[in-house]
Amino acid sequence: MKIKGLIAATFSTLRTDGSVDLEMIPLLVEQLIADDVKGVFICGTNGEGPNLTMEERMQIAEAYIKAVNKRMLVLVHVGHTAIAESRRLAKHASDIGADAISSVAGFYFKPTSVNNLADCMAAIAEAAPDIPFYYYHIPAITGIAVDMIRFLELAEEKIPNFAGIKYTAATLHEYQRCLNYKNGKYDMLFGYDELLLPALSIGAKGAIGSTYTFAAPLYNAIIRAFEEGNMERAKTLQWQAVQMISCLPEYGPIPTQKAIVGFGGLELGPCRLPLTALAADKKQEVKQFLESMHFFENLSLIRNEN
Amino acid sequence: MKIKGLIAATFSTLRTDGSVDLEMIPLLVEQLIADDVKGVFICGTNGEGPNLTMEERMQIAEAYIKAVNKRMLVLVHVGHTAIAESRRLAKHASDIGADAISSVAGFYFKPTSVNNLADCMAAIAEAAPDIPFYYYHIPAITGIAVDMIRFLELAEEKIPNFAGIKYTAATLHEYQRCLNYKNGKYDMLFGYDELLLPALSIGAKGAIGSTYTFAAPLYNAIIRAFEEGNMERAKTLQWQAVQMISCLPEYGPIPTQKAIVGFGGLELGPCRLPLTALAADKKQEVKQFLESMHFFENLSLIRNEN
Amino acid sequence: MKIKGLIAATFSTLRTDGSVDLEMIPLLVEQLIADDVKGVFICGTNGEGPNLTMEERMQIAEAYIKAVNKRMLVLVHVGHTAIAESRRLAKHASDIGADAISSVAGFYFKPTSVNNLADCMAAIAEAAPDIPFYYYHIPAITGIAVDMIRFLELAEEKIPNFAGIKYTAATLHEYQRCLNYKNGKYDMLFGYDELLLPALSIGAKGAIGSTYTFAAPLYNAIIRAFEEGNMERAKTLQWQAVQMISCLPEYGPIPTQKAIVGFGGLELGPCRLPLTALAADKKQEVKQFLESMHFFENLSLIRNEN
Amino acid sequence: MKIKGLIAATFSTLRTDGSVDLEMIPLLVEQLIADDVKGVFICGTNGEGPNLTMEERMQIAEAYIKAVNKRMLVLVHVGHTAIAESRRLAKHASDIGADAISSVAGFYFKPTSVNNLADCMAAIAEAAPDIPFYYYHIPAITGIAVDMIRFLELAEEKIPNFAGIKYTAATLHEYQRCLNYKNGKYDMLFGYDELLLPALSIGAKGAIGSTYTFAAPLYNAIIRAFEEGNMERAKTLQWQAVQMISCLPEYGPIPTQKAIVGFGGLELGPCRLPLTALAADKKQEVKQFLESMHFFENLSLIRNEN
Repeated sequence: MKIKGLIAATFSTLRTDGSVDLEMIPLLVEQLIADDVKGVFICGTNGEGPNLTMEERMQIAEAYIKAVNKRMLVLVHVGHTAIAESRRLAKHASDIGADAISSVAGFYFKPTSVNNLADCMAAIAEAAPDIPFYYYHIPAITGIAVDMIRFLELAEEKIPNFAGIKYTAATLHEYQRCLNYKNGKYDMLFGYDELLLPALSIGAKGAIGSTYTFAAPLYNAIIRAFEEGNMERAKTLQWQAVQMISCLPEYGPIPTQKAIVGFGGLELGPCRLPLTALAADKKQEVKQFLESMHFFENLSLIRNEN
Repeated sequence: MKIKGLIAATFSTLRTDGSVDLEMIPLLVEQLIADDVKGVFICGTNGEGPNLTMEERMQIAEAYIKAVNKRMLVLVHVGHTAIAESRRLAKHASDIGADAISSVAGFYFKPTSVNNLADCMAAIAEAAPDIPFYYYHIPAITGIAVDMIRFLELAEEKIPNFAGIKYTAATLHEYQRCLNYKNGKYDMLFGYDELLLPALSIGAKGAIGSTYTFAAPLYNAIIRAFEEGNMERAKTLQWQAVQMISCLPEYGPIPTQKAIVGFGGLELGPCRLPLTALAADKKQEVKQFLESMHFFENLSLIRNEN
Repeated sequence: MKIKGLIAATFSTLRTDGSVDLEMIPLLVEQLIADDVKGVFICGTNGEGPNLTMEERMQIAEAYIKAVNKRMLVLVHVGHTAIAESRRLAKHASDIGADAISSVAGFYFKPTSVNNLADCMAAIAEAAPDIPFYYYHIPAITGIAVDMIRFLELAEEKIPNFAGIKYTAATLHEYQRCLNYKNGKYDMLFGYDELLLPALSIGAKGAIGSTYTFAAPLYNAIIRAFEEGNMERAKTLQWQAVQMISCLPEYGPIPTQKAIVGFGGLELGPCRLPLTALAADKKQEVKQFLESMHFFENLSLIRNEN
Repeated sequence: MKIKGLIAATFSTLRTDGSVDLEMIPLLVEQLIADDVKGVFICGTNGEGPNLTMEERMQIAEAYIKAVNKRMLVLVHVGHTAIAESRRLAKHASDIGADAISSVAGFYFKPTSVNNLADCMAAIAEAAPDIPFYYYHIPAITGIAVDMIRFLELAEEKIPNFAGIKYTAATLHEYQRCLNYKNGKYDMLFGYDELLLPALSIGAKGAIGSTYTFAAPLYNAIIRAFEEGNMERAKTLQWQAVQMISCLPEYGPIPTQKAIVGFGGLELGPCRLPLTALAADKKQEVKQFLESMHFFENLSLIRNEN
């Protein structure tokens, strides 16, 4: 399995009372398909997987798979502090027809070595042996920054259905080494939207990211420009992405992105603690910032070019 | 509620196949009561709470409460990445007669401020409004090291059933400030067994710790010596505790402690990944180390003195 | 060499233009002797050693040694990023009659192992072979938190004039292990004033700290109470120290302490960048806080008791 | 001032007894000029600046400036824990004809805010007002990772001779924001050789790095390929750089690179503690690794192509 193009790390849709809103999912899916996204990554960081109950995670997975109806890929994140629960989520994902599963490293008890990490991931992957497994590398959250080349070696040995890594780190030199491991044996999905062009320059083909949920045309244009050898245009478009993303940390990346999706018409609802939704005035600040950089305008232009 | 004496942060008992062994719990409980432990803290770090499923956590809580049968306190740790699941565990603990609940800070999405942390803890405590709530402060694992004095102020305001903190950090000056907050309004249970005497010296009265599961007589003797003003003896006994604990990190604290309990006759079984049980030769090394410092001998002597 | 009692980690005295003010040193020294301080630790963290030029550090060392005139101990901190400069400072300290030298770990290029650290310290100690060498362990600043027991073993082997450690960390269990290393072979000077009583409870005899520069009578009273077995009084006095120290981080520990010394009549001057002196209103806040806890009053009472 | 092309962060040349070997400098300089390097960055991290005495740093600066004789740029790193010493080095560099100076953030007492950092850098830059000043951003060593956009705003205001940043971090999105600050007002020299192509893709023009000392032709070929729109070739060449660099961390980056320069015929000598030179067998391992990836062969081919 090798994924080319963009996978949207989608959001969990909640009602104003905080309960899961499954009815929004088909609307979001149609928009993603219209924007030429190649798949969704659900219940990950951006999808607030760790904030949801087991039942909610399974309901959301079912709703996405049904709404997508094989028109794009569905990758289900099954990371959990308890490997027993991860295995239950993995089996469920496989049973309902997910295209692949993925998991972060343990985040309460943390793997003590790359070998221990590979053993943990093997225990999870084994519960869904018929679909590909991606390790979700995100050291900024889990604190686990072990050598990914060594991990590839061990995963190759221990995980029969190992497919690759969702690589969410800025260490592009290590990423390039992973891309070149055994002549590109594994699928290395890049996870930092703000570094998409740098990643393309060293060989990235597929990427998973949160802003692909609402700005995929911009990133598809970056990929197109890169493939056409138009590096000037690619750089200019990446700069738009970087500017847009620069406003996320101040207000909290996930709630701010949910607000941005809302500006486009789809109200995805609040977040769950410890995440908190943006107050009205903060939403307004974000909107004004994006307008000042002509974000929506440029996105429209790009959409119309296609 | 103010707890005086030792609370054992007990272990989860597993069969060799890794499933939960509820039948071991009564045996462990009787030993703790015989050792004059004042309560148990279950499904915490040491009890591998985050490695267990929701159902397992609830079964273990029920088994402990039944086995204890009101002869000592039962505190149930309900920390979970999903606050919705923490609330379910909290309500369950309250329903089955737990004496108190406790929770760590969020450990995937981390609280971004002390205020955010207090809001999260309030959301959990609210699900078990009739029993005391303790915040479980353990920055070495969660990475959350916000100001605990400010937390006390906010918890006082936001959490009606707030009782205090299980304070697992070496920053004894902050601990002393918490002890003195509003003339000792809150119950500050100290969480580092290897620092029990230093904590007593500045005012600690209660403590929760993992080694109290198998070495409570040693620590009760420290408390007694301290209360009798025999600082020389207290220091000598604390030095025995420190020596014993010094062998835990090398092999992994939780599996090693399970092995030590096993030396005394109660086989608590393996651990769950990412934790791994000690190999036979490592167990032997631990045993020899403890024998070289006369650990079991001294513990016997202390038990017989009583 | 075993030091009993308090060593003041004194401040560097600066004129308002930022140049070193050597004339203040004798005044500060007389005050320290009057307060029954057993020695001074100069050009360390608190003394802004790393902010000073080589020449200034040597001038300050000379001025202290002259002013002290063998009435108490003078320990000279010679830590520097360049070991060659540390050696020059070490030799100079020895030549002018310092009682001991001390050095932190390298803080630009950091030791990569405890063995590498011991080699670095040996290279420094060797330049002043006739006086004792203390390793200055302060991981909160240097980031070097290697195993101090292993360090003692290596220092014993590699550093003929090794005397012990200035142990500035809250990990009192490791400190107790160091105290007990080979039945107390080395001098373990404790470095966190806010944890003095906890350290005494497990065997500390000597301590080096910044607040001993202006509040030694309070700490000497803690030691006395502890030695008399009056743990209640010791705890109450330690609580005064903890409260006082709690106001330091907000405004910057070193500039705030210089301001506090100023309240007592000795104007020690500004600090050097990146440290910045307190603005007048901040000084006022600190003063009011200390008055609200009757700090000066209590200190006077203690002084008069003696 | 805007630098285009490669600046070599050169090594300090030492005799086998550890003393500075000024006679090697002209030989190294000629090689760098032959390899079409645009300048040298001296006494930085790679040049072991913080391991050298003030006198040695000044001698080395003089030797480089004399050897270079205006045929390329000479940037002198003046970072030091003591700003007073940095100022002395800055003035000296300016007096002897350096083209620019640069400094890291304070690394014992660390700047507490971006404003404090800018004040520190202003104090240093002021001592050499007639030549450009570059802030040397290297959070992996200094731990200072403040917002560089905010730093640019403050430096613009506080440092008249501010020229830009030596940006040594993998956070390319922030780097792209700095590149675009006020339409490219400042010179942003990129500092991670292993990420040169990714940096070029978003607009980098100049770079400072250690491996440019011995592998500049490879990197110049990357730049050429990039400028010609030959992204496939650029990627393949960058992959060679990444592979080569992958062997550095295991043995220590600086000593290993000195060994690699030695393979080419110039013996640069040992390093100073805490850095340690490679043992003979380790040197052999490095050599074999580089031969296995045809590093020297490829470098020769590239050299001959020009």
